Amino acid sequence: MERAKELINEAIADKLDLKLLKIDTSKFQVFFNDHPENDFNTLFKALPHSRKYFVAGVPGFFQNRLFPKSTLHIINSSYALHWLSKIPKEIAGGNSLAWNRESIRNKRFVNEVAEAYSAQFKNDIESLLNARAQELVAGGLMFILIVAVPDGIPLSQTTLGVFYDVFGSCLMDMAKMGITSEEKINSFNIPNHRPTPKELESIIKTNKYFTIERMEQLADRMSQSTFLAKCRTSAVRAVYEGVVMEHFGSEFVEPFFNHFTVKVEEKASRFEKFQNPIDLFVLLKRTGDELN
Amino acid sequence: MERAKELINEAIADKLDLKLLKIDTSKFQVFFNDHPENDFNTLFKALPHSRKYFVAGVPGFFQNRLFPKSTLHIINSSYALHWLSKIPKEIAGGNSLAWNRESIRNKRFVNEVAEAYSAQFKNDIESLLNARAQELVAGGLMFILIVAVPDGIPLSQTTLGVFYDVFGSCLMDMAKMGITSEEKINSFNIPNHRPTPKELESIIKTNKYFTIERMEQLADRMSQSTFLAKCRTSAVRAVYEGVVMEHFGSEFVEPFFNHFTVKVEEKASRFEKFQNPIDLFVLLKRTGDELN
Repeated sequence: MERAKELINEAIADKLDLKLLKIDTSKFQVFFNDHPENDFNTLFKALPHSRKYFVAGVPGFFQNRLFPKSTLHIINSSYALHWLSKIPKEIAGGNSLAWNRESIRNKRFVNEVAEAYSAQFKNDIESLLNARAQELVAGGLMFILIVAVPDGIPLSQTTLGVFYDVFGSCLMDMAKMGITSEEKINSFNIPNHRPTPKELESIIKTNKYFTIERMEQLADRMSQSTFLAKCRTSAVRAVYEGVVMEHFGSEFVEPFFNHFTVKVEEKASRFEKFQNPIDLFVLLKRTGDELN
Repeated sequence: MERAKELINEAIADKLDLKLLKIDTSKFQVFFNDHPENDFNTLFKALPHSRKYFVAGVPGFFQNRLFPKSTLHIINSSYALHWLSKIPKEIAGGNSLAWNRESIRNKRFVNEVAEAYSAQFKNDIESLLNARAQELVAGGLMFILIVAVPDGIPLSQTTLGVFYDVFGSCLMDMAKMGITSEEKINSFNIPNHRPTPKELESIIKTNKYFTIERMEQLADRMSQSTFLAKCRTSAVRAVYEGVVMEHFGSEFVEPFFNHFTVKVEEKASRFEKFQNPIDLFVLLKRTGDELN
């Protein structure tokens, strides 16, 4: 993420009108936000003792207000905004068409399902922008790093699509082995959404409190083989273990991810045929518009 | 602690020049400070969902700087300042007179030991006041609630003294039973100090950034029997389990506190002869003095 760092440093230096090397960080208070259920203790213990800035942890959902009005100058959101505040109601309910028409295997490829996730994402980003607009001072900056699906390519034609497919088929294998049931799998949904750059851009553009100062697709984040390697390693488990454990129970986790690793290995050639997701960098600036 | 609440409300209403009922707490950001090793996760999960103020957790030692300059308006320290930043060096070292002259049973009653703790407390409160002086705005308030030993009464003549005595003799019993050793006990020290009101007052008075606006001994905090009841219950364990476990190991904890409860029962009449510690409320105000 060298390029992202470069872009962030440049924008901050520009805002503060000075060279980064000269910044007196003792005036900085850095707030780390995460869900209240997540582990702040480990974060706090891992903070460097030699740090020259002040820190605080803020428990709460980023779609909600987290800070008093006009108290933030710079916000950095790194690989977080794809998490939705909830499973879209069209999906979560047991009676909806979207929910039970298809198995988890290819749920995300069904239009109604994809649209429900996309609508929830729009809703969440709008809430996020309105909350941050209240908290940022005029001229304040917001950096976003998010994994996106390239414009014009269906999810099913990306390695992310293959990932979902393998993930779903592993779940079905677990049902066949009697470790879980199809019903249990049908009610399992992951509350995230990978937007396209155009999708994200159009949501942001409807918000009058922010201007897009920069939007850049970061080059060559990873080759197919590094994406594949990540699927094989604990990277996937680190991200998905929580939701899997919550739904299927803790005893399910170990055999499932072991099976997943084997299956990814088998499907390696499929991953290599498709396009990778991209890392999208967005720099927003708070306009001077007064809040309603 | 009704009286403490009253005093705090009164001072805040006075400072903000309005009735408390009319305060718009959505402008409030409440920071909870604790040692980085302590459990913020439980705190964050326990926060009321319906709260109308913003929160953050701040990991760090209160004797150090925790916030940028002039960013706080009100500080509340409740039953915390008796914890020292470390065991005084005269006590911690294996070679010092103060350390090995007496067993834990009555360590605190030996003058050199008591003085070393008192000196460390002075040092810590000075650091605390200087750190907070940087962080508070001019006119900012600081509330302190602390358990104190009544002026003019030796620690050994208070229920706190009896408490230490029973605590130490329980440790010795554990050595006799072969559960720990006398050497292990000799190197065990609790990093806290209970000052007298005069002692605390004279430390604060040497600091030019604060004025004492109010200092009040809260009436009838507890009777001897409630002090005794607290010793018998998990209240003592909640406070001391951490330091005991760290020094003696986790298997020591259960038998030790069980034995302690029995022993307190036996010594009930001794507790009843002595004076209780007091709850001391102090209200400090940040002067307009510029920082050096």
